[in-house]
Amino acid sequence: MWKRKSLFWTETERPMNFNEEYQKRTERIEEILKTYLPEAKGRQALIMEAMGYSLMAGGKRLRPMLMGEVYALFGGTGRLIEPFMAAIEMIHTYSLVHDDLPAMDNDEYRRGRRTTHVVYGEDMGILAGDALLNFAFETACTAFDLAPERSRDIGRALKVLAEKAGIYGMIGGQTVDVKEAGHPVDGETLLFIYRLKTGALLEASVMIGALLAGAEEDEVRRLEEAAGKVGLAFQIQDDILDVTSTTEVLGKPVHSDEKNEKTTYVTWKGLEASRREVERLTEEALKELSGLRCRNEFLEELIRRLVYREK
Amino acid sequence: MWKRKSLFWTETERPMNFNEEYQKRTERIEEILKTYLPEAKGRQALIMEAMGYSLMAGGKRLRPMLMGEVYALFGGTGRLIEPFMAAIEMIHTYSLVHDDLPAMDNDEYRRGRRTTHVVYGEDMGILAGDALLNFAFETACTAFDLAPERSRDIGRALKVLAEKAGIYGMIGGQTVDVKEAGHPVDGETLLFIYRLKTGALLEASVMIGALLAGAEEDEVRRLEEAAGKVGLAFQIQDDILDVTSTTEVLGKPVHSDEKNEKTTYVTWKGLEASRREVERLTEEALKELSGLRCRNEFLEELIRRLVYREK
Repeated sequence: MWKRKSLFWTETERPMNFNEEYQKRTERIEEILKTYLPEAKGRQALIMEAMGYSLMAGGKRLRPMLMGEVYALFGGTGRLIEPFMAAIEMIHTYSLVHDDLPAMDNDEYRRGRRTTHVVYGEDMGILAGDALLNFAFETACTAFDLAPERSRDIGRALKVLAEKAGIYGMIGGQTVDVKEAGHPVDGETLLFIYRLKTGALLEASVMIGALLAGAEEDEVRRLEEAAGKVGLAFQIQDDILDVTSTTEVLGKPVHSDEKNEKTTYVTWKGLEASRREVERLTEEALKELSGLRCRNEFLEELIRRLVYREK
Repeated sequence: MWKRKSLFWTETERPMNFNEEYQKRTERIEEILKTYLPEAKGRQALIMEAMGYSLMAGGKRLRPMLMGEVYALFGGTGRLIEPFMAAIEMIHTYSLVHDDLPAMDNDEYRRGRRTTHVVYGEDMGILAGDALLNFAFETACTAFDLAPERSRDIGRALKVLAEKAGIYGMIGGQTVDVKEAGHPVDGETLLFIYRLKTGALLEASVMIGALLAGAEEDEVRRLEEAAGKVGLAFQIQDDILDVTSTTEVLGKPVHSDEKNEKTTYVTWKGLEASRREVERLTEEALKELSGLRCRNEFLEELIRRLVYREK
């Protein structure tokens, strides 16, 4: 039986009920997000309302979940990780808010709800995104008050957060994605976009969890490597599902990549090679994790379900 | 003779040549900005280019200048302040880039050059602003590498930076300004906008300079107070100039507030009361400064010239 460590539950020997544990973690993360979200008051209440509208719109909460699990994996306890869990979800959310803007993807709906700029106006959509990005750092900085004696580690975690969210991480990937939209790209560019746009924040999540729990430098690197592979596998699976799934199962139109003449991993390498690559990347990521000094059964199962999902 | 301390020059007894010293400081700040600006390379080079276009477009560099002077005033030496000087100018710049967007003020020119979104497209304008905001924190975080033993102070400085730039600071002011655009506002709302939109980053500048130089808590508060007053006086002077100056001197159309039926301090209180308020605020700010344990002649003169400017 694997040794299990979790932020929110004591160790137990009974077989894990994944769905139940997933649900508990999601609920705890929603609570954390609510705690750190600013109350909508004052003359500028509108911007807080728009931030809350976008942040509390649901979603898988994958990044804070990964962060919390890795923190627990390395024996992290207490609330020090929570401001960073909230911060990374704020950064992910701001990127979606700006991505949906008319000058970008011009999306009016996300997860079945009207997008932020549709509800609050384009100007407030821009400002709400700015506010979420800024507030992510403001929130993460509250960790200095929680544990001033850990300032050096918190500084390292902040640096990772900023780097992975920025031009050498998420924004860098987003830039190339936007620039190349509407025409075919070569395989290397495709991998670059996947690694940066999706992979970078997943890398930040596990690295910050490890850093704040006091993991060693080589463990942090190993986790970064694993998260990069998971991010890539996740994106390739996305491309596979667009070809193999149905609109009913996926909840969004299939064959959209083909219609938009979009380069995907599947159009580049073919369906079978794509499936093999997802498997290879996932196994490698899990192997990295299994080489760490402790294991987290939930985390490993989470990764499998993320990658081998059907929608 | 006042005791003079400066980041860049040794103390001297000869009378200060303000313009010469101002020029030297500006040049040094331009060098610092260039040092911290990312090199435009890689697949995402376009975003770095757009960041550089907006950051290196000139400007008074008031925020880093105030920060550097206060740092020197409290005996700060070395390069620890430099990443924060660059960071605050990046935050100021991103706010201008987003402010100029079509969904906001829709400005095509700033300081005689085409605005970032006009040159690089609206999508890249949004992303370049995001990138500058994020890179400001990335840059400030390099201070942890410069002086890991100062991590606690750096953490406090980062927290001030994030708070003053966010919804309780600059973005908060910007939100109310955008929301109230096009209709008259009451005096309290006007002061709220001035204090937050302009004042907050000036407050951050002096507070961070003081914190990183090791000033006491009450000195930091005193400087915050003084900078708030300077910011307000600066804005009121702006309103005065719109009424009393000429387009030739100002380099932009005068009487624009009247034409746009905009509430200003002058329309609220009248010209004479506005002049008295500028004087009162400035004298109070200088009095706060004179109560500190050391003085900086350049800083005091800089404030006077900022407020009592003719354009």
